[in-house]
Amino acid sequence: MPRWKPDARERFVSAALHLFSEQGYDETTVAQIADRAGLTRSTFFRHFTDKREVLAAGQETLSALFAEGITTAPADATPLAAVAAGLASAAAAMTPFNRELGPRLEAVIATSSELQERAVLKKVGMAAAMSEALRNRGVSEPVAATAAELGVLAFKEAFAAWSSGEGEELAPLTAAALDRLRAALTELG
Amino acid sequence: MPRWKPDARERFVSAALHLFSEQGYDETTVAQIADRAGLTRSTFFRHFTDKREVLAAGQETLSALFAEGITTAPADATPLAAVAAGLASAAAAMTPFNRELGPRLEAVIATSSELQERAVLKKVGMAAAMSEALRNRGVSEPVAATAAELGVLAFKEAFAAWSSGEGEELAPLTAAALDRLRAALTELG
Repeated sequence: MPRWKPDARERFVSAALHLFSEQGYDETTVAQIADRAGLTRSTFFRHFTDKREVLAAGQETLSALFAEGITTAPADATPLAAVAAGLASAAAAMTPFNRELGPRLEAVIATSSELQERAVLKKVGMAAAMSEALRNRGVSEPVAATAAELGVLAFKEAFAAWSSGEGEELAPLTAAALDRLRAALTELG
Repeated sequence: MPRWKPDARERFVSAALHLFSEQGYDETTVAQIADRAGLTRSTFFRHFTDKREVLAAGQETLSALFAEGITTAPADATPLAAVAAGLASAAAAMTPFNRELGPRLEAVIATSSELQERAVLKKVGMAAAMSEALRNRGVSEPVAATAAELGVLAFKEAFAAWSSGEGEELAPLTAAALDRLRAALTELG
């Protein structure tokens, strides 16, 4: 089997994350990122519009996978069962690269209030994508919004556990996290 | 009884919202806002750091009121009962000025993606304030996060109904909205 070989996009993401953690996000230029990745600035700009976009890499993909899993869930699936299918669909697409880079991404985001704001907006965007897919299944607005929030929380929790070495596969961790959240709902009162 | 007389802060907010809707957010300057309010630029800068902050006026207050109501709820209140107390605390502080300006604020926000992002971040900030107040009562993280989300949804829904002329008082509308959301949870599956 050939050794896993990152493509240009992944090389830029990896180089950028290393530089952001070493010298800070604000202090890092696109030229430095390209240099570290062993690629050119013009190749960088074929993949990303700016350095901030490097950190958003994969977020739209994730939203699309959540929505696809929800949309293709069996017609009689409950809202939370459809969300579970969405999480499974996204989990199946996560690679060793995602698993390794997750914690480093978190650490970089924690250093910048601008990046924290972007991260919050991305999280809200993912919830909105799930919520819309649920409403398209005929789920009412508040139920869809709540199920989507639980889905984002479950995925975040499961991904953190997986990134820190827990479990072999991400999918069962997302299912377990969603089950725990569902059980916690009985404590709402 | 004296006629309700807005203070400088409210005059700036009202003037800014009128100008934003008439000529656009980007095209409006602080000088124009001060002029319309019949006050000076230096007075403006005693109240706000920039024109964007005019739109955030009251958000921190709202977060603080939510948190205060949750913190002072009876010790044996369930998480959702504590959230209901937080909503009641905020509802009691809303004035005719808030009621009138709410829809205009929404309309202005809808015209600018920058303002939409700020609005999303403010909403997340309010949920975080409620969630923290709940965790300080010993509520576990996922239950606190979910209860807070439901609280923000309920307040938003109730405020929109109140602003559009429904009901005399905001507090009972928030309680009813939260009850509806709680009932909808049974449909999650």
